[in-house]
Amino acid sequence: MSYTPPLRDLQFVMHEVLDVTSTLQQLPRHAEIDADTINAVIEEAGKFAAGVAAPLNASGDAEGCTLDTATHEVRTPKGFKQAYEQYVEGGWPSLSCDPAFGGQGLPVLLNQCLYEMLNSANQAWTMYPGLSHGAYECLSAHGTEWQKNTYLPKLTSGEWTGTMCLTEPHCGTDLGMLRTKAEPQPDGTYKITGQKIFISAGEHDITSNIVHLVLARLPDAPAGSKGISLFVVPKYKVAADGSIGERNGIFCTAVEHKMGIHGNATCQLTLEAASGTLVGEPNRGLQAMFVMMNAARLGVGCQALGLTETAYQMAVAYAKDRIQMRSLTGPKAPDKPADPIIVHPDVRKMLLTARAYAEGGRALALYTALLLDREIASDDEDERAECADLVALLTAIVKAFMTDNAWIATSHCMQVYGGHGYIRDSGIEQFVRDARINMIYEGTNTVQSLDLLGRKVLGDNGKKLKKFGKIVAEFIEEEGVNEAMQEFVNPLADLGDKVTKLTTELGMKAMRNTDEVGAAAVDYLRVCGHLVFAYFWARMAKVALEKQGSGDPFYTAKLHTARFYFAKLLPETAALIRTARSGSDALMAMDESLF
Amino acid sequence: MSYTPPLRDLQFVMHEVLDVTSTLQQLPRHAEIDADTINAVIEEAGKFAAGVAAPLNASGDAEGCTLDTATHEVRTPKGFKQAYEQYVEGGWPSLSCDPAFGGQGLPVLLNQCLYEMLNSANQAWTMYPGLSHGAYECLSAHGTEWQKNTYLPKLTSGEWTGTMCLTEPHCGTDLGMLRTKAEPQPDGTYKITGQKIFISAGEHDITSNIVHLVLARLPDAPAGSKGISLFVVPKYKVAADGSIGERNGIFCTAVEHKMGIHGNATCQLTLEAASGTLVGEPNRGLQAMFVMMNAARLGVGCQALGLTETAYQMAVAYAKDRIQMRSLTGPKAPDKPADPIIVHPDVRKMLLTARAYAEGGRALALYTALLLDREIASDDEDERAECADLVALLTAIVKAFMTDNAWIATSHCMQVYGGHGYIRDSGIEQFVRDARINMIYEGTNTVQSLDLLGRKVLGDNGKKLKKFGKIVAEFIEEEGVNEAMQEFVNPLADLGDKVTKLTTELGMKAMRNTDEVGAAAVDYLRVCGHLVFAYFWARMAKVALEKQGSGDPFYTAKLHTARFYFAKLLPETAALIRTARSGSDALMAMDESLF
Repeated sequence: MSYTPPLRDLQFVMHEVLDVTSTLQQLPRHAEIDADTINAVIEEAGKFAAGVAAPLNASGDAEGCTLDTATHEVRTPKGFKQAYEQYVEGGWPSLSCDPAFGGQGLPVLLNQCLYEMLNSANQAWTMYPGLSHGAYECLSAHGTEWQKNTYLPKLTSGEWTGTMCLTEPHCGTDLGMLRTKAEPQPDGTYKITGQKIFISAGEHDITSNIVHLVLARLPDAPAGSKGISLFVVPKYKVAADGSIGERNGIFCTAVEHKMGIHGNATCQLTLEAASGTLVGEPNRGLQAMFVMMNAARLGVGCQALGLTETAYQMAVAYAKDRIQMRSLTGPKAPDKPADPIIVHPDVRKMLLTARAYAEGGRALALYTALLLDREIASDDEDERAECADLVALLTAIVKAFMTDNAWIATSHCMQVYGGHGYIRDSGIEQFVRDARINMIYEGTNTVQSLDLLGRKVLGDNGKKLKKFGKIVAEFIEEEGVNEAMQEFVNPLADLGDKVTKLTTELGMKAMRNTDEVGAAAVDYLRVCGHLVFAYFWARMAKVALEKQGSGDPFYTAKLHTARFYFAKLLPETAALIRTARSGSDALMAMDESLF
Repeated sequence: MSYTPPLRDLQFVMHEVLDVTSTLQQLPRHAEIDADTINAVIEEAGKFAAGVAAPLNASGDAEGCTLDTATHEVRTPKGFKQAYEQYVEGGWPSLSCDPAFGGQGLPVLLNQCLYEMLNSANQAWTMYPGLSHGAYECLSAHGTEWQKNTYLPKLTSGEWTGTMCLTEPHCGTDLGMLRTKAEPQPDGTYKITGQKIFISAGEHDITSNIVHLVLARLPDAPAGSKGISLFVVPKYKVAADGSIGERNGIFCTAVEHKMGIHGNATCQLTLEAASGTLVGEPNRGLQAMFVMMNAARLGVGCQALGLTETAYQMAVAYAKDRIQMRSLTGPKAPDKPADPIIVHPDVRKMLLTARAYAEGGRALALYTALLLDREIASDDEDERAECADLVALLTAIVKAFMTDNAWIATSHCMQVYGGHGYIRDSGIEQFVRDARINMIYEGTNTVQSLDLLGRKVLGDNGKKLKKFGKIVAEFIEEEGVNEAMQEFVNPLADLGDKVTKLTTELGMKAMRNTDEVGAAAVDYLRVCGHLVFAYFWARMAKVALEKQGSGDPFYTAKLHTARFYFAKLLPETAALIRTARSGSDALMAMDESLF
């Protein structure tokens, strides 16, 4: 596996497309940020990703994690602990954390750049520090002063990592059914008992303590999702004065054998009267956890982006090197016994699909991260609300559209290798296996699509969607007189109109039959995903057109990729709109017994 | 893993849709066949598949194959050899072989039924007997009398298995580059030296000898694909009198570690002056091998079908059992804490996608097998030629469309399991990993699409395509007055017209620029695949409509699945036709250096 951090493209999106520096400078806490700082940080981040995390990707996959059933300790693959130590020494965990707890206070945007590259290098390894961010956000928003002062500095420094303990054997999507119990103790703490499964980074040997955020049910809590509370349960107990005590009653009792991300320990955790403290209000745990889940969903989209970029780079290198058959239009490498396979149109189609999904996804992810920075740090309440609405709308798209795209893209990149791609030594099939989990965890892509269509779009009468639509419409209007941009803005405008019509139609149908939402949601999300990607591809094409004369081939490549996107990927919407409109009868009419 | 042989659906397609008995009875060698024989054979085949091969699927995947590097012997997973012995005792290898060599002389159609079920049960195991069929066909068509008399009885009884040795490290698709050398010996044999890779079932412990069919180059052979000859090279030498001699110089020097089909030994074979005999004419080896490759391509489509069926069955069982959330239209299992997930529209969409692809694929595969029986056994030369043309056209579709569909379908079935699907214990992720190889081997799906559009369609000015088009048109005409059939024949007729136009357009473009073929071929093949599936779904719907009144719920389910296919899967063609028409510039304009 070879990986070159896409610094140029990250800089292009941040500085030339989104002009992030001006936007960030308007936020009081980032008034001093400048492009040089941004560029220096991502360059160093890229060095860590390519130099330290990437070399452990294939070996981590081959070795996996091992549970010692006597001690309940998990051994992570060789080198993972050392890489994490270097990561902590480099100060990376603290990048966008609050200076009040030892953080560097840099924008979320930079964390997004860091995480894209870490995921490109090694998704399984990246999940150890990655889960901490959700725990940090959640405690930061809902923790008591003691919880914040006790846990946030350790999560900021990276001395400890965090987890999310939601799923139980009988419930994942339907957390209302969860059974783990929390008994209040006279000292204000709780004893928590139950079983959790699928806990990523749930146990490991890379830090001295682990901060588990655990959903559980108080005695006499209402049934269902309104009776769930959130607790922080450390692996080693933390006393009121912050000192570390004895081992807590939360044990890893199994490590799952999975299709991929072998380097990350997916744990079954058994809680036996484990000591914890309440986070937020009783019975409002799901609301508190949502802070973490939203961060995690954006994080999963970022995993998909990372895998797509590396798979693309690997497949391009193979396609330039591997010679096989002649070009249909005559030899292109007459001095060799055959042409490099990159001369074949369909090989290029597979490569460009991955490229267009990676670069489009990068633009969307950075745009969303910038919105998050504004949502968090603006001193204008309206701006914060506006950005929060857009983030809410885009989160499901980042998670589901980008992870579906990564599945398509990594599979294409594997196909470029032919038979060699199916062999483990090639390294590429790992990317397909790793990519598969991203469509499932943190809310399956079906759940994301219901969240988008049901809650975020129809749930507020299209208000959030209209906000994004207005941004697109303004761009189209601006470029209306720009002849060179017509090839991009016309299909964008056309798709925008279609999304409006489709949304209205589905809204009407949903009033008569709510199954219409469930029947159309997945197709609808993909249509919206293409609308968002088409908007960013048009914006990127605009910059590339303007700077094409500079002689920098970067802009030529960008323009070609934009044209590819509009010619070969966007047309998928023609099918999706038809199936989205074709209703629920074709799905629901068949009696369950006939399946 | 649970698997129930789909006997009812096999019988439905054979007896109620295709009326195979009447067709077969017109062939002299099958004059005595009847429905009872067919039904009895497939019932027994199903018992073997479900009872013997299926229980070894997950264990075979977990254990894999092991090479003893000292002896070059491969150990297959526990139970594989015993299952094969039972297979031989049951007489299954001889099912459709020539009685002259000990075969039962039954139709290829029955072998198709057998192999669908074996692949459903255990693709990796099925490849051990499966590769023998290609070797049998090839020797049967091109072998000398001695080769036939020596090898065919052993392949028929299953005492020996066969392989195809084509690929070398530097060439797979481009066999013209192969380097393995064959030196003629005074006794008329050849000494063959070289290295082959990716040889499925290339070495194992389940039979006493292995019959390798090896492509190699004679001294002074012309360069390229016109200088390749075919040889039969047994693992243990076979003397002129048929007696078994010493170990031949063909050794397994590595077993690949792969993404899936772990139970099958994918071997690197080193030939060191291995003794072989020439099959067919010198320098015409590729033509001889094509007999085997065409059989193998249909076999790969059959693997895809088998995996899709089992993945569907597993996902349905899970979806009926797993309870999670309530139906959007109100509780369906009010006595339980949540509804079974089969109430959710998108879960049904994923299940029905797999079902429609399995049942559509079954119809196409059985139709193609029946054409093969007619091509082989008709005493009417015109009929043989007609059937051969249709088989040539359909082979690429069976291989590529059905394997792409299986990738989509098995991934959907895994998604139905949520997080549990990513865990090995669920058994479902193995189907996704196993399905991935089918898109690659025996000619990648890109190669299949070029074969279809370039060679089979444009290469004969659409003659073969028109033959199939005529069959479709006749059906549409027959059903033109049948009101109940309009929902099926109208979209079928519409797609037929679009394929005709698209073919003409691509033919014109190809005359100016052959890269247009390569740019459109993959999309074109999928459009044709849907045309073929729509035809069979319409035919199946017709029978189901006629028999709906019988009260047999089978017909109701068939009709629902047909409607699902037309509403939710066929519309993909709207996108595919657009991308097929969008030309090669979007792929070829970007300079290689910009990738």
